[in-house]
Amino acid sequence: MLNKRLHSFPLKAMKIDDCYWNKYTKLVPDVVLPYQWKILNDQEKDAAPSYCLQNFKIAAGELKGERKGVVFSDSDVAKWLEAVAYSLETTPNPELEKTADAVIALIGRAQCDDGYINTYFTLKEHGKRWISLTEGHELYTAGHLIEAAVAYYHATGKEAFFKIVCRFADLICKVFGTEENQIHGYPGHQEIELALIKLYDVTGKKEYIETAKYFIDARGHQPNYFVEEMQRPNYIQIFPEFSNYNPVYSQSDKPVREQTAAEGHAVRGTYMYCAMADLAFYYEDEKLLKCCEKIWDNIVHKRMYITGSIGSSAHLERFTADYDLPNSSNYSETCASIGLVLFGKRMAQINRDASYFDVVERTLYNTVRSGISLEGNRYFYVNPLEVWPDNCLADTAMQHVKPVRQKWFDIACCPTNVARTLTSLGQYIYSSDDENVYINLFIQNDLHTEIAGNDVMLKLVTDFPKSSSLSLQVTTKGVSDFSIHIRIPDYAENFHIAIGGKPEAYSVNKGYACIKRCWHDEQIDITFDMPAKLVSANPNVRADSNKVAIVRGPEIFCLEETDNFKNLPSAFISRSAKLEEHYDETLFGGTTVITCRAKKISDENWNNDELYKAAKPMIEEVTLTAIPYGYWCNRTPGEMLVWLNTIL
Amino acid sequence: MLNKRLHSFPLKAMKIDDCYWNKYTKLVPDVVLPYQWKILNDQEKDAAPSYCLQNFKIAAGELKGERKGVVFSDSDVAKWLEAVAYSLETTPNPELEKTADAVIALIGRAQCDDGYINTYFTLKEHGKRWISLTEGHELYTAGHLIEAAVAYYHATGKEAFFKIVCRFADLICKVFGTEENQIHGYPGHQEIELALIKLYDVTGKKEYIETAKYFIDARGHQPNYFVEEMQRPNYIQIFPEFSNYNPVYSQSDKPVREQTAAEGHAVRGTYMYCAMADLAFYYEDEKLLKCCEKIWDNIVHKRMYITGSIGSSAHLERFTADYDLPNSSNYSETCASIGLVLFGKRMAQINRDASYFDVVERTLYNTVRSGISLEGNRYFYVNPLEVWPDNCLADTAMQHVKPVRQKWFDIACCPTNVARTLTSLGQYIYSSDDENVYINLFIQNDLHTEIAGNDVMLKLVTDFPKSSSLSLQVTTKGVSDFSIHIRIPDYAENFHIAIGGKPEAYSVNKGYACIKRCWHDEQIDITFDMPAKLVSANPNVRADSNKVAIVRGPEIFCLEETDNFKNLPSAFISRSAKLEEHYDETLFGGTTVITCRAKKISDENWNNDELYKAAKPMIEEVTLTAIPYGYWCNRTPGEMLVWLNTIL
Repeated sequence: MLNKRLHSFPLKAMKIDDCYWNKYTKLVPDVVLPYQWKILNDQEKDAAPSYCLQNFKIAAGELKGERKGVVFSDSDVAKWLEAVAYSLETTPNPELEKTADAVIALIGRAQCDDGYINTYFTLKEHGKRWISLTEGHELYTAGHLIEAAVAYYHATGKEAFFKIVCRFADLICKVFGTEENQIHGYPGHQEIELALIKLYDVTGKKEYIETAKYFIDARGHQPNYFVEEMQRPNYIQIFPEFSNYNPVYSQSDKPVREQTAAEGHAVRGTYMYCAMADLAFYYEDEKLLKCCEKIWDNIVHKRMYITGSIGSSAHLERFTADYDLPNSSNYSETCASIGLVLFGKRMAQINRDASYFDVVERTLYNTVRSGISLEGNRYFYVNPLEVWPDNCLADTAMQHVKPVRQKWFDIACCPTNVARTLTSLGQYIYSSDDENVYINLFIQNDLHTEIAGNDVMLKLVTDFPKSSSLSLQVTTKGVSDFSIHIRIPDYAENFHIAIGGKPEAYSVNKGYACIKRCWHDEQIDITFDMPAKLVSANPNVRADSNKVAIVRGPEIFCLEETDNFKNLPSAFISRSAKLEEHYDETLFGGTTVITCRAKKISDENWNNDELYKAAKPMIEEVTLTAIPYGYWCNRTPGEMLVWLNTIL
Repeated sequence: MLNKRLHSFPLKAMKIDDCYWNKYTKLVPDVVLPYQWKILNDQEKDAAPSYCLQNFKIAAGELKGERKGVVFSDSDVAKWLEAVAYSLETTPNPELEKTADAVIALIGRAQCDDGYINTYFTLKEHGKRWISLTEGHELYTAGHLIEAAVAYYHATGKEAFFKIVCRFADLICKVFGTEENQIHGYPGHQEIELALIKLYDVTGKKEYIETAKYFIDARGHQPNYFVEEMQRPNYIQIFPEFSNYNPVYSQSDKPVREQTAAEGHAVRGTYMYCAMADLAFYYEDEKLLKCCEKIWDNIVHKRMYITGSIGSSAHLERFTADYDLPNSSNYSETCASIGLVLFGKRMAQINRDASYFDVVERTLYNTVRSGISLEGNRYFYVNPLEVWPDNCLADTAMQHVKPVRQKWFDIACCPTNVARTLTSLGQYIYSSDDENVYINLFIQNDLHTEIAGNDVMLKLVTDFPKSSSLSLQVTTKGVSDFSIHIRIPDYAENFHIAIGGKPEAYSVNKGYACIKRCWHDEQIDITFDMPAKLVSANPNVRADSNKVAIVRGPEIFCLEETDNFKNLPSAFISRSAKLEEHYDETLFGGTTVITCRAKKISDENWNNDELYKAAKPMIEEVTLTAIPYGYWCNRTPGEMLVWLNTIL
């Protein structure tokens, strides 16, 4: 029997003011959301056109023209609205809210009489709904609209958007299912499932979660729905790369309960695993939860980059094989990492296990941050661990790897996904139920909530990860009996807790330090060490053979050409090298920088016309400077390297 | 003013009987040509269908049906005929000749009244000749037919095929050129140029070489012919990957005389460079020769794998950037290496420079051999330097890399190309003019020829590369005054020549040891050392940073899983490791095998659920066994590795 699941606090209950994350969270309402708004309206010069708002205007009959852009471009508007919603929840902004209300009204006017919303299938392929589930992304787009509307409802209390998506969700629940008069298909790109469950959370309407369950249960049975659909004469082919469709791509080659490894398209996979975890909880489906655990373990023990990114292959943006983690040709899509974060949070809240947050934190602090520039208006879709611009630019097989962040993309799922993740950061800091508060991430904030029927204020003060000391001020109205669980990160050493200045004994349960007592007005001081370390990969990761990564706390470090030299793989570090940490207040608004002595193979004993020869390497002594991976490419572009060669 | 160019001896003048190459050359008439004949007739089970002969039969009106297969499948028949021709020249085989004659007669019956031959454009796209030069491969196919016919004429003296292709060549010379009533285009895939020059060699007919010169001179001027052609309404699109056509792909982005680096599709490039070298010689075009030299240098100093393969990217099978030589994702097409061999031979014969043969030999002994199994009926198209089957099979971005040789390919240019290269091996052993004989490759053979007006017999006796001692018996009818030039390979140490048992002084000119004297009946003994060595790549080759390859003479060695262990990149070799060479008579019909002591990073201190941790490597001592790269994958399939990690 599954425990009660933990929940996150509403964003409005907390105020984040964190010297590390403020660089991004404060940027979002001021720069990111306005910039993305311009993009959605095609007002940014030299950026890939989005056609997003234009399509809705045409669908609403307010503009003439042809529906353009990628099939699922409506979802970018949805994710932007979701990001806006979270932002409004913590940072009121009447002008932004007015803009959002106008977009929502436009979506409403673009909605068909029966509730259907999708500009591609109302304009470009009119009358051809639901016949190309494999590629059409209708249910994917619907899911994002629903998520946005739920968020907007929570943030503003306004019902307009919520009603719009409920009408759409009602249609979907009517159209899809096991009945004879229903379509027996399921989404080509998962997303609707977790969205319908969110809608159920708010409405309590059983149809929503049951349709989500139907989509998960129906998936992957033989004969394969997509293979059959693609053979029908009315099928609409959209993506040329789908011509040799393999159901593994969409995790539909076998029933989800028979899936034990993360296969196929990484974003599709992680979104589905989120819904599986949700359903496992709601239906008390231990078997489904075990599947989620197996798949999670497969990802984090065999198929995840040290930066928390996933998807080793650019071809179909997918998982490949255990330990296959190439560093320069990988996909490591920003959205896939966000999917992993969403999955990890759900698993942590079901299993009350801090280890999931080790992964969530690693992903947020590295790949999610890498996905956006410090100026907020340039994005990485692909997040490699090794970049040599000459190669990315000359080899068209590497064209997915951009050596600099881009203004936008023809297929632009990532930027708005980063925006909604940053504005919802508060959802990851705490988990709770009636009697327990779990502190998952060390982000400075004030929380005002109710626990065990009492008003509770938690004030988490820290400059983490600059230092690794935190203080948690607990203030309750009257005396309150509940447990505080503090995540002991996997990288922490000498983890100490003191209350009122005195060491406090704690029990440890699944990675959380637990203190159960009557609280009134206490200060908890938490300290641990997280010295920079040289970390190895499992020797079966052939790409990292005898290499090391510099890791300090949640941050993975990398070399950039601008701090070092050209040809970063020519550097070799001793495994006993001393890592010097210092905090540079001026760099990236303040960051830890790590330096160390190393050797470099020089090319001075090589002539320009020599490609191969028997020659001992000529060694130079160098000092390497490493910065956190999340900040890479915010200065002069050039080479970048996470995994350093070592001297065996 | 260019010197007189050296020539190769006719194949019929020599008899190769070499313990190393017999494995292949004896296999060709007995196994390879009959196997490929079955394939061309679609009689081999489970092999990709070729439709080659079927298409000709349909075109000749002798069979009903639809023209199938790749657009240039006719060229596979041509290359097979060319291979047959060289084989017949040295190894008479009446039955094979009868088969070839019948194919030739069939081609004749499939020829249009005006001389045109191409089953795709006479059947599938009838009436649409020459309007899709970018993709249509008509001139490419024509070139291979011409090469085959010239070879068949040399081999058999029969004129039928020769007359067929002359009619076709006459048509091409009439259709293409600078006149107003001519098409001002040029081939999308170069090949016709070098073929027309061969036809000129035999016929002396100026139009042929002038049309070849036209094709080379016209290429790459603005506006780009292909870009314009693709915009015409009648254009036929054949390959989806051509949709974003970049003229660099076909070396047509700028005039050939402005090209200084090897860019674009590697096979297109090398075939073009062959024609450029030929034209430089015939037209005494020093500037064009300088271009060839620059491009050659760019390839061999910056863009060639140690195995003599080229084409770093699988996407468009192309050159990328200097020093960009990834080992597992590369293309390294067998055909591109053959193109490099053809180019190198031409340059060596123009410049009388042995260094070109260092590359030709390396390519023949490694990548060309790798292209075919020891049984003669399985082929590699792509020749990687590192293979991890788990990754090739799971990552669809790696689907070009096959971990085992294939029966045939949907696009099957390589197998027949290997066949014609093996049957024409004798063309590379010697170069000559009236007063000089150059010995380029150390392959045991008897040559009977005329030099300086005298009958000369050369008998080269060697078991190279088992050993590196050769004896050359020179027998002349009467006394004959000429020079013998013996290539001093770049890997040779202590190169000694003795005549009649006495050390002989020699001058060295461009890598050849030269002995000029009156010959009558002398034995020249040549000895040198070629110990196995650990060779490094230029440190700018990031993929080979602090790695070494084991090289002995012309052979590059590799590790195979079957001799060693899984996870070959976990092995680390000391740069001072002692390489033990021994000759194994039983392995691959006899080969040198190299063993050495090394370290291996064990995974014994890693649990199955650990992907990253701070841990010192656990080291095992191992003995590595390396075999010549050309033999890889002739036993149990598995991992393979050329570049070994070293202990710095």
